[in-house]
Amino acid sequence: MPSATASAAYADLLAHARETYVYTSAAAVLAWDQETGMPRGGGELRSRQLEALASLSHARALDPRIEGWLAQCEQDRGLLADGDASANVRELRRDHDRATRLPSSLVAELARHESLAQQAWAEARANSDFAAFLPFLRRMVELQQQKADCLRGSRSRWDALADLYEPGMTQRGMAELFAPLRQRLVALCREIESKGKKPEDSFSRVAFDEPLQESLCRATLAAIGFDFERGRLDRSAHPFCTGSFGDVRLTTRYSKDNAMDALGSAMHEGGHGLYEQGLREEHMGTPLGEAASLGIHESQSRLWENHVGRSRGFWQWARPVLRQRLGVEVDGYTADDLWRASNRVERSLIRVEADELTYDLHVMVRFELEQELIDGSLAPDALPAEWNARYRDYLGIEPPDDRRGCLQDVHWSCGLFGYFPTYTLGNLYAAQFMAAARRDLPGLDEGIARGEFAPLLAWLRDRVHRHGRRHAPAELCCLATGTPLSAEPFLALLECKLRAVYGC
Amino acid sequence: MPSATASAAYADLLAHARETYVYTSAAAVLAWDQETGMPRGGGELRSRQLEALASLSHARALDPRIEGWLAQCEQDRGLLADGDASANVRELRRDHDRATRLPSSLVAELARHESLAQQAWAEARANSDFAAFLPFLRRMVELQQQKADCLRGSRSRWDALADLYEPGMTQRGMAELFAPLRQRLVALCREIESKGKKPEDSFSRVAFDEPLQESLCRATLAAIGFDFERGRLDRSAHPFCTGSFGDVRLTTRYSKDNAMDALGSAMHEGGHGLYEQGLREEHMGTPLGEAASLGIHESQSRLWENHVGRSRGFWQWARPVLRQRLGVEVDGYTADDLWRASNRVERSLIRVEADELTYDLHVMVRFELEQELIDGSLAPDALPAEWNARYRDYLGIEPPDDRRGCLQDVHWSCGLFGYFPTYTLGNLYAAQFMAAARRDLPGLDEGIARGEFAPLLAWLRDRVHRHGRRHAPAELCCLATGTPLSAEPFLALLECKLRAVYGC
Repeated sequence: MPSATASAAYADLLAHARETYVYTSAAAVLAWDQETGMPRGGGELRSRQLEALASLSHARALDPRIEGWLAQCEQDRGLLADGDASANVRELRRDHDRATRLPSSLVAELARHESLAQQAWAEARANSDFAAFLPFLRRMVELQQQKADCLRGSRSRWDALADLYEPGMTQRGMAELFAPLRQRLVALCREIESKGKKPEDSFSRVAFDEPLQESLCRATLAAIGFDFERGRLDRSAHPFCTGSFGDVRLTTRYSKDNAMDALGSAMHEGGHGLYEQGLREEHMGTPLGEAASLGIHESQSRLWENHVGRSRGFWQWARPVLRQRLGVEVDGYTADDLWRASNRVERSLIRVEADELTYDLHVMVRFELEQELIDGSLAPDALPAEWNARYRDYLGIEPPDDRRGCLQDVHWSCGLFGYFPTYTLGNLYAAQFMAAARRDLPGLDEGIARGEFAPLLAWLRDRVHRHGRRHAPAELCCLATGTPLSAEPFLALLECKLRAVYGC
Repeated sequence: MPSATASAAYADLLAHARETYVYTSAAAVLAWDQETGMPRGGGELRSRQLEALASLSHARALDPRIEGWLAQCEQDRGLLADGDASANVRELRRDHDRATRLPSSLVAELARHESLAQQAWAEARANSDFAAFLPFLRRMVELQQQKADCLRGSRSRWDALADLYEPGMTQRGMAELFAPLRQRLVALCREIESKGKKPEDSFSRVAFDEPLQESLCRATLAAIGFDFERGRLDRSAHPFCTGSFGDVRLTTRYSKDNAMDALGSAMHEGGHGLYEQGLREEHMGTPLGEAASLGIHESQSRLWENHVGRSRGFWQWARPVLRQRLGVEVDGYTADDLWRASNRVERSLIRVEADELTYDLHVMVRFELEQELIDGSLAPDALPAEWNARYRDYLGIEPPDDRRGCLQDVHWSCGLFGYFPTYTLGNLYAAQFMAAARRDLPGLDEGIARGEFAPLLAWLRDRVHRHGRRHAPAELCCLATGTPLSAEPFLALLECKLRAVYGC
């Protein structure tokens, strides 16, 4: 039994966290509105509103009472015998240490510099002018090094930063995953290219009005289990998902001649949204009501986007839905035509446009370069040359300018170092979850071909969603799938599918 | 010259007010979202977000430093010689006194009771069950009496409450305006009914799809000067306008067979929105950046809804726009048909559905009854009988049940006593502004018939919008129109128009 003091401290700790969530969730709605419908004239006031809510949350995170509550909880074996309490206390300690280890002056300077650097990056990218961004990058690297030094303890700087996004992720762990991945992806790429033919993809160039595409996206999201009573779908320039529990907001983008892109983005964000809708509402505002990590979050989006949405069975179900929503233009395409078109691969320069096969090669380039920037072995001014060299090496192509090279991503300008590998982790987790679900659910693919997505969602709800931050990501993967994370399921599934698509 | 101390106090006072506005404006966006697009599942969290932001604003309004800043400003002649500072200090004093005169315990009890009473009202109205609402009304009247006693000084209770919504409005002043108004409205109503014919209004029953109606509303709002770069239009169950300056959000409602209602509501809310867009952005967050009163706000909505939107010239401009946006169904109607249909009048039971002629008779009933409730001369349990008696007396019709009688409005259940007359003030101000604009702008109506709305908007910007709370409403009316508020312009315009419509 927990002592009365510990129980009271735990109750205070949770109430405090839940109240902070009221502010952060309000800010999320305001940020969503800014990207979806805010009139242009509202921008200045909106940034002040978001800043005010962010400083409220930040001040709350530094509330000196938290340390006392945590200490009382951590001393009480009775309290920690409860699984929920033990996980919440562990994770709130993690959050609190992160928040308090950074001096306020550094936090303020980082916030200021991130804002400036992001603006400078946007302009530099537009002009493909790396020199204009260089001083901001240089200062950003210095600040990130300082930040890492505050957080690292005995860890490497990169490990300390990466742990902010993916608890437990390390340089060594990522390098071990990446080695076989690189080798087999490059080999598979060669194998496919040696066939000398590509799937016909003229469907991607048929024009469909936005309301038709939207109707297709809505029907598909509803079919895979997204609950529109507890969420919505809108349009934005860059697709995203925000919110949790009963108010989960997805966006997708529409370009007239690329209905597959709108649908793929909707399924990707829908996967994020299903995760958020699958968290347990009684844990709202506490770690048990939050996603396990960015990598696990990405696994949910990738699972629905790639393992469902690019599967042969999915297109058998989807073909008549497309016909119904998009009209007669679909008549010239069979389910297999659409399946093959959705799996077209091609080496290209831009990460966010990359296919399932080459995507992780883009990530590897960034992973190597950011480690070197942070440990000081790569000088910021050498970045463009090094970037281009690695693209030649990994992808066999070279950016003609920095806009399509090292200036393409926003992340480093926002201070996100150690973040890129979570994308690859998402891809690997997704494949391992899908392989385990297939093992546990006989007939899963045949069901998908009939539009039966519920068994898969129920499996994910049970194995992944409902746990929140109860387990560290690596542990969650073991518990859900029975084995530690490996690149093998991802590679096996991809090789099998692409060989079928390309007729190898 | 103001002293350095007074200047600093004034700067602190304004910065404090501007920061509070950051929170209240954020809450307004969240409230807008709740009414327009929030998924059902977001309701519980949203109410907590709004509650948290409201208590933040409330706590800021009670900040003890405000009294000191105000006192320093009020002692400094140099500071008060500046018109802006003088108005801001006067109005911030008004707000501060209002906020601090109510004990926190009463504020909390009012907030609790308003929430309970509003829920009880909604259920009682649905069941037409006044007895279920009676205990809540009784307690509400007691609490409002206590509130009035805290605020009143030497004023009557009703005057103290009404002053919250319309600075300077008194029982006596309203009674003086209402006497001629009642007499001539009743006479005009009889005169029109004696003609024994009504304008043909079959147009109000032609079905038009919502996207067509929306396109008509957008085109009309853009034409009258609503800036969609600084605002937006959405749909909600009850039309409203929220936001200010660069982010003004209107809603209208659409029913398939009543495009005139959607357009009328859009123009009404558009009038509110033009006022908010016409406030000066450099005064954001301070009294000079706020509307003068509810009555002045309503005058702007009524001016565009009734004096523009129900004018003969407007329909000459609008007829081809309707044809373009709504389609061939418009062909059977001339501009004059539409004009007459928009001015159909009829005695009816429901205030919010009332026409321009009978609307203020509905308000008078409420004005009389709420004075008697607040001064104790009418017992709450006698309300239904008294309500019905006054409807017989003023409108010659009697509600068949309390749902269509004294339970129809939300106001009293929300604690809004002294609020209803601001609707009539809005009607009177609107007419007086319109008459003055017509005098100042020769050819105004001919211009409207050609779609030239800009001169009228410029006149309103100059005479009304840009001043914010610089002048008390009565003074603003004098300055804008040259004479104190009177019912005469309203009656004269209405008599003239309805006699023309009805061929008297």
